[in-house]
Amino acid sequence: MRATLQPGLTNRLTKYLRTTQQLIEEGRDAVSSKELGDFTGINPVQVRRDLNAIGFSGTRGVGYQAYDLVEAVRNILGLRQTYNIALVGAGNLGSAIAASTILPKRGFVIHDVFDDNPEKIGRTVGNVVVKHIDELKKSVTEAEEIIGIIATPASSAQEVAKLMVDSDIRVILNYTDVLLHVPSQVDVHRIDPTAQLMHTLYYLTQAEGQEAS
Amino acid sequence: MRATLQPGLTNRLTKYLRTTQQLIEEGRDAVSSKELGDFTGINPVQVRRDLNAIGFSGTRGVGYQAYDLVEAVRNILGLRQTYNIALVGAGNLGSAIAASTILPKRGFVIHDVFDDNPEKIGRTVGNVVVKHIDELKKSVTEAEEIIGIIATPASSAQEVAKLMVDSDIRVILNYTDVLLHVPSQVDVHRIDPTAQLMHTLYYLTQAEGQEAS
Repeated sequence: MRATLQPGLTNRLTKYLRTTQQLIEEGRDAVSSKELGDFTGINPVQVRRDLNAIGFSGTRGVGYQAYDLVEAVRNILGLRQTYNIALVGAGNLGSAIAASTILPKRGFVIHDVFDDNPEKIGRTVGNVVVKHIDELKKSVTEAEEIIGIIATPASSAQEVAKLMVDSDIRVILNYTDVLLHVPSQVDVHRIDPTAQLMHTLYYLTQAEGQEAS
Repeated sequence: MRATLQPGLTNRLTKYLRTTQQLIEEGRDAVSSKELGDFTGINPVQVRRDLNAIGFSGTRGVGYQAYDLVEAVRNILGLRQTYNIALVGAGNLGSAIAASTILPKRGFVIHDVFDDNPEKIGRTVGNVVVKHIDELKKSVTEAEEIIGIIATPASSAQEVAKLMVDSDIRVILNYTDVLLHVPSQVDVHRIDPTAQLMHTLYYLTQAEGQEAS
């Protein structure tokens, strides 16, 4: 077994990974610690220290080889090449998520989409035909899905979470604002921009207070 | 001027705030440090220490008064009661964001929605009539908007970001995967669930490795 990385390091590595993947898509072969620092808000000295810590080094004046960096970080994080995802909710939000180009670029494939509205079942969102929610467990097992996304109205979220737990989903991305009750072995992440906003606005207010004083 | 809070504390306070607001919506008057800990993943001892640090205390056996806690945290973070937001992009994603119940509950109002597609201008998304993107600067100034959301196709994101910067928007929530180039006084947050996913999957893989070993 590999040594366990510190949460702070893991968190920063995922940011370097995401940024480097994006720079590759913009046509870049190499990235510098300064660029990684600028786009992630992390000090370039810390960037170099982190990449050194995972045994990855760059070339002075050139930077880090972008593809190699992506592979090195993916390996150290133990990420599979692709993860299939079960998405529940085929409304505006679910359709937007299914059509997202971000997820597949990072190895996350919306493999199945479910709804309980007969008008939505059989329609295509993204590249996927919407199935009835009753097929969730069967599909999740077949496609070895351990990640579920809840993009339903709030009133259905807890019920969907229970179905996901019963289907052995391990990680739930919850786009509703319902506090889901799930067993402790299941990770729930709320996708809620308001926490980031409040955090940022606090520092903005502070900075303006300092300018004025 | 108030003393500046440590980033870790600010971050945790926004989580307590969000969770307490949600529990209030579920009909609760009081919350315990254990509940706040369970829903945020933070140790209850840390929860009590943080709330003590901002001068807020609970009652043994009852917990914290939920409304008072929300007010105390909002005050210490210096949050206004409401912030108006300019949203650009009236497709599936923009429509879902405009119809979100999470934002207004937390004091964030989608006040203006913009697009450049003539078919979308004049339509209603959420409760807002879509305006032409050319009206962005005027609307942002009138409604004193300092927060902008980009929910356009990736190909338009940088152009929209520039318009927002020129309109004195200070915080941008970027729902595309484009790395935006903006002046350093503007905060950009990418709303990208893949970073959280990669972080979580790393720990999941580790935990399974340990079970198996």
